[in-house]
Amino acid sequence: MHVHHIAIAVHDLDAALAFYRDALGMIEGDRREVPAEGVEVAFLPMGESEIELLKPLDPGNSIGRFLEKRGEGIHHICVLVEDIEATIEQLKAGGAQMAGEVREHANGTRYAFVHPKSAHGVLIELYQHADAQ
Amino acid sequence: MHVHHIAIAVHDLDAALAFYRDALGMIEGDRREVPAEGVEVAFLPMGESEIELLKPLDPGNSIGRFLEKRGEGIHHICVLVEDIEATIEQLKAGGAQMAGEVREHANGTRYAFVHPKSAHGVLIELYQHADAQ
Repeated sequence: MHVHHIAIAVHDLDAALAFYRDALGMIEGDRREVPAEGVEVAFLPMGESEIELLKPLDPGNSIGRFLEKRGEGIHHICVLVEDIEATIEQLKAGGAQMAGEVREHANGTRYAFVHPKSAHGVLIELYQHADAQ
Repeated sequence: MHVHHIAIAVHDLDAALAFYRDALGMIEGDRREVPAEGVEVAFLPMGESEIELLKPLDPGNSIGRFLEKRGEGIHHICVLVEDIEATIEQLKAGGAQMAGEVREHANGTRYAFVHPKSAHGVLIELYQHADAQ
């Protein structure tokens, strides 16, 4: 179990990279549009984790509405787990609510979100890589 | 450079541990009052990072006011750097504003905060351990 990424919603990827890459000194990794998620993402790997800068492709999607309501800032943190079903079962047994079902990225990584109401105000994403277990 | 910790402001440490430790399955580490910071902290190490649950000792201090204004949620993230002065110099050269001066924990770790206005809505703490450099 470790922190896989910290996702930050921003208005402008280049402006955010001017801070995180150029001023703070992080290394820029991949940058791509993820239409299925409605975002353009810039990845900044750092140790075993990475910062993900998220820019909405459409101001009306969930990241766009987050920006409109809360402004720029941390959108969610993602924790890598070994067995996402077992983790979800344990969360539900503990009374936690999930936000939606388990879904799958093209690379086979399966993911799900814990509702921030259950996680003391934090939107937590769970990741299980395809080669886990 | 890696994510040292993610700090989450909460109203009640035991209630938050019931989620992060018992339901999500994280391991509880140390738990202690840090009067100099005005908080009681529970540490949950995870890989090379840790989650820090912060409960204000006084509702009028900065964590207490954060909770009153924003509710529970991520208060800041902390990035471990090798040379805090060099990092700050580079940040300032890039136009970033710091929030206060460099301070020192009892164990010699030096720390400083980047103003969230400069970091696209994220309060970023910088850490340099006493044995770095």
